[in-house]
Amino acid sequence: MAELSKNLLKNLAAYRLPKCCDEKEVFVVEGVKLCDEALRSGFRIRTICGTNEWMVAHQTSLPPDCEKYTVTADQLDRLSLMRSPNKVWMLVERNMPKILNIPGSLVLALDGLQDPGNMGTILRTADWYGIRQVVCSNDTVSCYNAKVVQASMGAIFRTAVHYCHLETYLHDCASRGYAVYGAMLDGEPLYSSRLLQPAVLVIGNEGRGVSEGVAASLTHRLTIPNIGGTCESLNAAVAAAILMSEFQRNGDCF
Amino acid sequence: MAELSKNLLKNLAAYRLPKCCDEKEVFVVEGVKLCDEALRSGFRIRTICGTNEWMVAHQTSLPPDCEKYTVTADQLDRLSLMRSPNKVWMLVERNMPKILNIPGSLVLALDGLQDPGNMGTILRTADWYGIRQVVCSNDTVSCYNAKVVQASMGAIFRTAVHYCHLETYLHDCASRGYAVYGAMLDGEPLYSSRLLQPAVLVIGNEGRGVSEGVAASLTHRLTIPNIGGTCESLNAAVAAAILMSEFQRNGDCF
Repeated sequence: MAELSKNLLKNLAAYRLPKCCDEKEVFVVEGVKLCDEALRSGFRIRTICGTNEWMVAHQTSLPPDCEKYTVTADQLDRLSLMRSPNKVWMLVERNMPKILNIPGSLVLALDGLQDPGNMGTILRTADWYGIRQVVCSNDTVSCYNAKVVQASMGAIFRTAVHYCHLETYLHDCASRGYAVYGAMLDGEPLYSSRLLQPAVLVIGNEGRGVSEGVAASLTHRLTIPNIGGTCESLNAAVAAAILMSEFQRNGDCF
Repeated sequence: MAELSKNLLKNLAAYRLPKCCDEKEVFVVEGVKLCDEALRSGFRIRTICGTNEWMVAHQTSLPPDCEKYTVTADQLDRLSLMRSPNKVWMLVERNMPKILNIPGSLVLALDGLQDPGNMGTILRTADWYGIRQVVCSNDTVSCYNAKVVQASMGAIFRTAVHYCHLETYLHDCASRGYAVYGAMLDGEPLYSSRLLQPAVLVIGNEGRGVSEGVAASLTHRLTIPNIGGTCESLNAAVAAAILMSEFQRNGDCF
């Protein structure tokens, strides 16, 4: 395990920029817990920078074919996007799944979601509910954004996240006879709707909801009843969670 | 409407510190949408700093008995905690509700919740579901934290948030015969549990869950089934939302 030269530190610190990660088809994973998940995930790890303590504790469990550097706290600070860096920083190779045309039991679709925290939380909730496929419109935030990765709590390693022209994908699903549900403000009341599966469940953008083109591909519109009547909308990750929960309690082919 | 002197700007910028807000029993509200909610809320507004455009548009709807200042973009930047300040900044007086000993249909209780974003999102979801009372342990993040206020999307103006010794409150509720539910990793499966109301629903801290003392006051332990089996836990605001949704779909006395 080498020490990190000034030049190399500068090169690796460039991965703080999403553009650099995109070009090299990697993503940044940070912190003890998430890096342990990365090691167990089967994803190919390109670079590991850990404190001496972390490196010594993990020396027998690190993959042989990656670059490994022991870093000082100051160097870790230079690499890290976190306010309090936590012992280890990695570059992990992206694992772009092929798009699947036919939904399994339940596929989650994200239409223009922008907030990385929301995206990560949605992946985490999908992971909890055993939903393994997420299909995103091309204008949805990248699932490899560092904040998405952190908020996903490791779900990024267990979920196939596709990016595609969402309207075309949904149109195709609907024309094959699958149910395509959208979370809308003007749909059928969720708690009295019969939820069919296999299905796709579409969650819209935080501000504008499901886009017009995508809405045209829906076969069902669902609304979470606004009992209080004073709040305009729910947070997108919260709405997604309530809907996933409801599909789960109703579904029998998960 | 006066302009803001250098000295006064310095004094008001001190409210960026939570300590200063605590001492004066106010909280900061920012941005066009949230400030409009503040104006309609009935909360007493102490100070308004708006851009010339905002002040002119609102001059007939501002309360007569508060301080009003027209500010430049630079001055607003100095006051604001937001990355992109949005035309207006206010100091609003806190409205501490008296603690209510008897739950209405459903009371939400927060045990040591720390993340302001989670807290704000939980208030927003409670508002959506018509839950008007939230009881917090004394070590829960302040509901007047600027990030809580922003994430609540105005729910802070419509929800009575109490701080108290939560164990004592819950013990009292249980001894009066009310159901006290806790979100736990080792409870009864949520979807097959009969959810009684009136009730208190306890959400624990992000990392350690419901504390031992509070757990001892529960009459029922609930678990959201971990269908995927790979994810360790749900985000606290997501778990709270799934549970509130489930009480809502089951409850008949909301």
